Amino acid sequence: MSKPIRVIAYGLGAIGRAAAELVLKKSNMQLVGAVDLNPQYVGQDLGSVLGVGRQLGVKITDKPVVLFAQAQADVVIHCTSSSFVTVYPQLVEIVRAGLHCVTSCEEAMFPRYRNAQLAGELDDLCIKKSCAVVGTGVNPGFVMDTLALALTAACQNLEAVRVLRVVDAATRREALQRKVGVGISEAEFQQLAKDQKIRHVGLSESLVFLADALGWNLAEVDESIAPVIADKRIKTPYFTAQPGSVAGVKQVATGLWNGKEVLRLELQMYAGAANPRDEIVIVGNPPLKLVLDGGTPGDLATPALLVNSLPSLLDARAGLHTMRTLGLPQIAL
Amino acid sequence: MSKPIRVIAYGLGAIGRAAAELVLKKSNMQLVGAVDLNPQYVGQDLGSVLGVGRQLGVKITDKPVVLFAQAQADVVIHCTSSSFVTVYPQLVEIVRAGLHCVTSCEEAMFPRYRNAQLAGELDDLCIKKSCAVVGTGVNPGFVMDTLALALTAACQNLEAVRVLRVVDAATRREALQRKVGVGISEAEFQQLAKDQKIRHVGLSESLVFLADALGWNLAEVDESIAPVIADKRIKTPYFTAQPGSVAGVKQVATGLWNGKEVLRLELQMYAGAANPRDEIVIVGNPPLKLVLDGGTPGDLATPALLVNSLPSLLDARAGLHTMRTLGLPQIAL
Repeated sequence: MSKPIRVIAYGLGAIGRAAAELVLKKSNMQLVGAVDLNPQYVGQDLGSVLGVGRQLGVKITDKPVVLFAQAQADVVIHCTSSSFVTVYPQLVEIVRAGLHCVTSCEEAMFPRYRNAQLAGELDDLCIKKSCAVVGTGVNPGFVMDTLALALTAACQNLEAVRVLRVVDAATRREALQRKVGVGISEAEFQQLAKDQKIRHVGLSESLVFLADALGWNLAEVDESIAPVIADKRIKTPYFTAQPGSVAGVKQVATGLWNGKEVLRLELQMYAGAANPRDEIVIVGNPPLKLVLDGGTPGDLATPALLVNSLPSLLDARAGLHTMRTLGLPQIAL
Repeated sequence: MSKPIRVIAYGLGAIGRAAAELVLKKSNMQLVGAVDLNPQYVGQDLGSVLGVGRQLGVKITDKPVVLFAQAQADVVIHCTSSSFVTVYPQLVEIVRAGLHCVTSCEEAMFPRYRNAQLAGELDDLCIKKSCAVVGTGVNPGFVMDTLALALTAACQNLEAVRVLRVVDAATRREALQRKVGVGISEAEFQQLAKDQKIRHVGLSESLVFLADALGWNLAEVDESIAPVIADKRIKTPYFTAQPGSVAGVKQVATGLWNGKEVLRLELQMYAGAANPRDEIVIVGNPPLKLVLDGGTPGDLATPALLVNSLPSLLDARAGLHTMRTLGLPQIAL
């Protein structure tokens, strides 16, 4: 067994905590630091915050740069925000300290799309400091992009890729149900959508990741969001959607190339969704249809993807990566 | 667009011809040579043998070493035999000439399993000559191994992987139907199986590839083969299986680790198989079930995988690769 990977957990929300817990279970990884700005966490032992029933000897700090200088870590698992502009200064601090980083920041899955200049600067800094950074998760990061791309390897030619992810929000955590608007009115939904408060971040990133990999220089990327209206009363452990109110959200991103819709990613997340699944349809030769029955639960799979990417990240060339350049994904041992 | 990849087609059986035809369709690849020992092919233009309706200016030769010295090629697509021992001297000639190589040789998908010493020597030679070699195809090479491994990236832990591939042999080419024994008697089947004349090569290679990647030091690898008996008359374009005769084959490889069956790969190829599909079941957290409806047709997908692996192969470090070390697979542009 090689030397354990020394990990800092940065951001202790639901995903960050789940990733930290998973690190504890991996024989070849070690948690050596934790960062969070929440004053209720700062100074506490990470074990208390994770609720793992034991002290870990890792005190949570709100001073990441000090920690980076002291912890002799290899890599940071970073889970603070969906916005690349927001996380950019945090990522810069991580890389300046000579640390690799995997981030759950959705826009960081393909940061060149919205922030080409910042992405370029981060890439330069990574190369200068011999560090590798990647953004991943289940979505964006795996089921609607990386897995779809891998599937094209079995095709002689390709006309279009369509991915559908259907999540029954009723089976997910409260925060997700709130995020998709379970039980609110259609008017409220429209206002929240307008304010970008109801929105899955990363659908366009997945789409542009695919287009880039497939050499499709898209003329247009379109993304739309609409409520799914409950046609009957739907009760979840946290909310109730009355008939006519919002059960959740349907979000669609499409890409046009040479006048044809070559990419379509559709995400349905609503309470009571029938037949939850991830479905990848390849229009090509041969045509292929992949279904993940029941779908891939993000609460488990996103922490898995973050932690599982660490070995390849440490092995990768320096730079700002995508899941395409990081090698074949697999579970970390 | 970068400089076209200059390709030699080595072995012009069904798969080799299909791969060569696909190279012709790729904008960034160029066929610059062809090797086959069939005296009816030698000296002919490759275009005539492929039946593409035009001359390609590529004369088929039975003298590969001479061709390698003259053709200024980058890479060889090699499709001659299932046996690593048989192809080994051919691969050595290719690498000695400084050429990269992708081979459809099933045992070369994980050659360390049956031929650790030869695999080690080929790896050394690759490094010395700065060449990369990999064995791939749809199976072994993709649906029962690489794709299953990639799927584990979404898991926090893993207890077992089970893959089932069901092929309706009636829809496949004559050679495959003959290979699986459509229409022969059970006694004939048993004799042919005993002589290893009925056998899908590579199932154990897929299994050991997975075990190696997952760090499962298998105590035992078992592989069994049995006929599927027709329960009614099945007529294909080439053969007829009477009730009680053989419709095809069922082959199973299993791997035990710590006393448990952690890996099970099952391949059913018979005429009249209902619900043809590729199915990957991950026993773990989360559990996952992936289905490729209708399955992945090998006649199309194996040439695709060979050709699609060329860009990553040319980009890879020198050595004898597996699909695990070659990066994320995808269609070549």
